[in-house]
Amino acid sequence: MCELLGMSANVPTDIVFSFTGLMQRGGGTGPHRDGWGIAFYEGRGVRLFQDPSASVDSEVARLVQRYPIKSEAVIGHIRQANVGQVCLSNTHPFVREMGGRYWTFAHNGQLADFHPEPGLYRAVGDTDSEAAFCDLLNRVRRAFPEPVPVEVLLPTLVTACASYREKGVFNCLLSDGDWLFTFCSTKLAWITRRAPFGPARLRDADVTVDFQSETTPNDVVTVIATEPLTDNENWTRMQGGEWMLWWRGEIVTQGRI
Amino acid sequence: MCELLGMSANVPTDIVFSFTGLMQRGGGTGPHRDGWGIAFYEGRGVRLFQDPSASVDSEVARLVQRYPIKSEAVIGHIRQANVGQVCLSNTHPFVREMGGRYWTFAHNGQLADFHPEPGLYRAVGDTDSEAAFCDLLNRVRRAFPEPVPVEVLLPTLVTACASYREKGVFNCLLSDGDWLFTFCSTKLAWITRRAPFGPARLRDADVTVDFQSETTPNDVVTVIATEPLTDNENWTRMQGGEWMLWWRGEIVTQGRI
Repeated sequence: MCELLGMSANVPTDIVFSFTGLMQRGGGTGPHRDGWGIAFYEGRGVRLFQDPSASVDSEVARLVQRYPIKSEAVIGHIRQANVGQVCLSNTHPFVREMGGRYWTFAHNGQLADFHPEPGLYRAVGDTDSEAAFCDLLNRVRRAFPEPVPVEVLLPTLVTACASYREKGVFNCLLSDGDWLFTFCSTKLAWITRRAPFGPARLRDADVTVDFQSETTPNDVVTVIATEPLTDNENWTRMQGGEWMLWWRGEIVTQGRI
Repeated sequence: MCELLGMSANVPTDIVFSFTGLMQRGGGTGPHRDGWGIAFYEGRGVRLFQDPSASVDSEVARLVQRYPIKSEAVIGHIRQANVGQVCLSNTHPFVREMGGRYWTFAHNGQLADFHPEPGLYRAVGDTDSEAAFCDLLNRVRRAFPEPVPVEVLLPTLVTACASYREKGVFNCLLSDGDWLFTFCSTKLAWITRRAPFGPARLRDADVTVDFQSETTPNDVVTVIATEPLTDNENWTRMQGGEWMLWWRGEIVTQGRI
């Protein structure tokens, strides 16, 4: 299994604090030694940092922790391999361009007996996760050859996720840099931080941050993770089958299948 | 204008030395202050480091210089903007998946009055370079809906490059991680290093490396750059209209239009 990390914010926000907690689980407090990756959107562009080695040992991970990249949408992942060898091409998140936007995807879980119809988007590596991402994009592209607002393609995303969930465990994060879509099959939790901000303490490292001193009163920042990353805040655990569409830190629409 | 850097090698090789030279031109010895990027293939996966700020000031560039990533195919670029604002989505190299491989592209030059036919691949940013890359992929995809050996699609690449050259200056590097294709419109030079290896001295920084101590007798490493990066070796300047297909450091096939 793997762990997911997502962020949606209404101002460019750095995710150093949450990333520090997640990285500890990559071979430190957790068993996820088989690589990690994180994608930061900057405008329509995306920065992707990845390493097939354990995040606690990764030079690139240390750069990301030291270097406060500010973003309104982030997708991160640490991996414990179950399908596919440990190599860069099997490392999440995966990125594809569709309709002139970079779409980014990370998955937690495992799909059994998964053989999607071939399409325009093809997996480069050999994980079930990347195959599902390509299938998802192929379904959207078949349904909407031209770009449409996310609200219009949302039913296609939800239907696709529902079908993957029938094949196994499928928790996922998906973004085009503007919105963030989350689907919970078994495990996903979120917290929205807004004024009045307070201190937060990581569960996985001896680090506390006082968001009060790093924010303005209008900031809204949602963090989504497989397991709550802090132990002094109230995270909400999503239910199986629950999906949400986030935009600038807020839920735009949600449902449950 | 911009500067290009490419590498094709028969063993995973680090490009720290050449990259160090190129980075100096990004606001140090050269005027290319508008971002830089470099893509390293690792198997079928690709690592992309980019920054829209000057490479001499870039924290990410320092990581890449410190961290000897070994690769058989590399494409790098430093930018002096002429079309499109300075931002991450306009920063080369550009990456797209086609046929289950990541294709990477960087361009030096400028195209005037360039309005390619829309297709499946679309630009995310607003550079003529990314538009040309998407058009190139759209032409390949239209001609070959299923993946074919590079020798088969080579005429399509050359014809596309010839058409872009009619619109302006079009020096480019293109790779799928296996082969590297180079097209010279006005300026591109290369050097192939093989045994007996000797010392090389950068033109843009006070750095000398003795490749003898870093190589084995069977290594073949070709470096391609807009301008020669060293001042004590014999670089070959390509002619206008000349193209080459490189594989593992050697020219597989070449021609001139």
